[in-house]
Amino acid sequence: MLMNYARLFAGMKTQKLDAIVATMPENVTYASGFWAMSQWIRRGPQAYVLTPAEGRGESAVIASTGLIDLVTHPDVWVKDIRRFGKFIVDRTPDISLDAHDSRIETLLAQADDGEAVAALVRAIKDRGLDRARIGVDEIGILPQYWDKLAESLPNATLVRAADVFRYARAIKTPEEIARLRRSAQIADMSISAALAVAREGATEMDLARAFHAKTINEGGYPVLGCIGVGPRSAMTNVQPSEQVMHAGDIIRFDVGGRYNHYRADIARNAVIGEPSAKVKTYHRAICAGLDRAIGMIKPGVRVADVFHAAVNTVRQEGIPHYQRSHVGHGIGLDGYDAPNIAPSNDDVFEEDMVICVETPYYEMGLGGLQVEDTMAVTRDGVDSFMLSSTELRIL
Amino acid sequence: MLMNYARLFAGMKTQKLDAIVATMPENVTYASGFWAMSQWIRRGPQAYVLTPAEGRGESAVIASTGLIDLVTHPDVWVKDIRRFGKFIVDRTPDISLDAHDSRIETLLAQADDGEAVAALVRAIKDRGLDRARIGVDEIGILPQYWDKLAESLPNATLVRAADVFRYARAIKTPEEIARLRRSAQIADMSISAALAVAREGATEMDLARAFHAKTINEGGYPVLGCIGVGPRSAMTNVQPSEQVMHAGDIIRFDVGGRYNHYRADIARNAVIGEPSAKVKTYHRAICAGLDRAIGMIKPGVRVADVFHAAVNTVRQEGIPHYQRSHVGHGIGLDGYDAPNIAPSNDDVFEEDMVICVETPYYEMGLGGLQVEDTMAVTRDGVDSFMLSSTELRIL
Repeated sequence: MLMNYARLFAGMKTQKLDAIVATMPENVTYASGFWAMSQWIRRGPQAYVLTPAEGRGESAVIASTGLIDLVTHPDVWVKDIRRFGKFIVDRTPDISLDAHDSRIETLLAQADDGEAVAALVRAIKDRGLDRARIGVDEIGILPQYWDKLAESLPNATLVRAADVFRYARAIKTPEEIARLRRSAQIADMSISAALAVAREGATEMDLARAFHAKTINEGGYPVLGCIGVGPRSAMTNVQPSEQVMHAGDIIRFDVGGRYNHYRADIARNAVIGEPSAKVKTYHRAICAGLDRAIGMIKPGVRVADVFHAAVNTVRQEGIPHYQRSHVGHGIGLDGYDAPNIAPSNDDVFEEDMVICVETPYYEMGLGGLQVEDTMAVTRDGVDSFMLSSTELRIL
Repeated sequence: MLMNYARLFAGMKTQKLDAIVATMPENVTYASGFWAMSQWIRRGPQAYVLTPAEGRGESAVIASTGLIDLVTHPDVWVKDIRRFGKFIVDRTPDISLDAHDSRIETLLAQADDGEAVAALVRAIKDRGLDRARIGVDEIGILPQYWDKLAESLPNATLVRAADVFRYARAIKTPEEIARLRRSAQIADMSISAALAVAREGATEMDLARAFHAKTINEGGYPVLGCIGVGPRSAMTNVQPSEQVMHAGDIIRFDVGGRYNHYRADIARNAVIGEPSAKVKTYHRAICAGLDRAIGMIKPGVRVADVFHAAVNTVRQEGIPHYQRSHVGHGIGLDGYDAPNIAPSNDDVFEEDMVICVETPYYEMGLGGLQVEDTMAVTRDGVDSFMLSSTELRIL
């Protein structure tokens, strides 16, 4: 189970919601297990999951008929499927279908609801929620569909509720932690694979090809691939080019794909040949800041306190002018889940958060130095997902 | 140049727009060349491009400071950059920066606008457009940001305008056609790479790994990877599994990544060993339907007529019960640009459309058969991007 129902229900209670509707791909997958491919790879396709408040009825998934094979996938735990739109799937006469295909056949035999909002409205009415206070994740639903929903439910109160999902997603379930661990480890192994081809004369693209090939070989999917060498490594979002590596060049990885839909985001550095004294000092400083942050994190510790400790440690240990707007963030189906580890954040760490902690430093002319680890918050500290150390690798 | 300014201006004129604002990642890239990474890989991050109507002023890009290295990329042709938010990039003292880094330094030295809507509002006011009729792509802007924009411009009229971009994007520029051709050809070569490892005992995942590795090696990025064997190939959105291939199995590819941000979407079939007579007949029928469609397409031909001709040909040539809701679609930055080749579409084909034409057939119990080609519409026909034929490959 991906969704933390207890946490979602608590968030809904705070907002006095009788039901909540997921509309953006991350929340649709989160609330049902349904990977609605078309909305993941495009903007606009609609898929929804209706989750009534505790004790108010079962969840329902609203899916385009064209996604019927994905909404019947064994990972989808919501049983009430409402489909909309025409899509033709035939079947060989006079043969018996397996359980999965039989379920598709049954669903296709039912009348569809024409379009997405009509299907959602029927699911809401079937649960007696048409006068309810309904939270709607405002990020994935098209504005004209929101309008149609409001018109179709004149006695309901619709409120924007993407933040309730964000609140729920911050505390991971065991299945989410397992996927995130694997995702981070695939990224970590992919950095090692890229470093195996790093040498003078190789290009950023050579590293990127080795990186992504390893990600794919391990069952992951490429997403974030910022890999830069030399001064280009100072570009925050550096996209691999034909830039050739030279002796003394910094290599910066800020990378991570998806595994079973869950994101990775880690960072490491290497140098071709002997690093300069400045690079060694600066890298030690960012590692010290990272270690300080990680050493502090446990349930109840203030997020802002960790931010300040990390930044101050980097300053004391060798980059006196170090400044940051955050030193990390949660991670899950979204690459930036709560909490944002920033000075303005009054929240505390909680058990089963999964977080990326990072102390990047970008200097035009020199390059970029960045270490970023991913870990789960445990009862009394953290459980790191990393396979490699943060040390500056000398190639 | 990616954007077809003449077509956009024509679409704006029809809607009486004095300016238009791109907000979803596809439209932001389209209107400026700016690949706003964070909004491509997540939902919520805001980036905008303001394009005044012809003769009403230059365009402006509104970008998070954290994306400063991407918004200054040489592919971005819009020169007025408005940044928002805090992000720290240092520079080595006493060295000279190259032109790109100097530009970053200059932009960072200017005051930022705090947040996205404030930056957009200032760009609008600077152009004297604060009493104008402004089209806003409603898909990428968060609803609360739309509200803030409306409050900040009480004398302007805001109208939803994603469809104006969709209209413009339908007719490609030469740069777009070049990228789409390469993207389709990478997908085509990747199918060949996957088929090179296809044999009894290999798995869907083996094919997928070979497919994506080739895509990456050619400089593409994986997106769509529906690869299924045997009865699983009938699943429209089949995701590669550990399913093993057996003699007689159909292999269906419905695949395509991105190259330089532009999508591919093509389909091919193979069979392990000798196909059944039914499979041979059905595959010939869908190829005949595809050929019929492609043979008809040229500027001025009605889209709906091509739909009916394709479906009727497949029926006549061997699948009498064949039904479809569409037989293809445009392709560009979005995998489904206009036109949708559907019976209800009253539009005609136009020169420089880039389209995917497809005649898929899904039969539970048998498998999925699908041929899909990508091509540009030329003055008197089509220019196919494909390297391989649609023939059923016997392995």
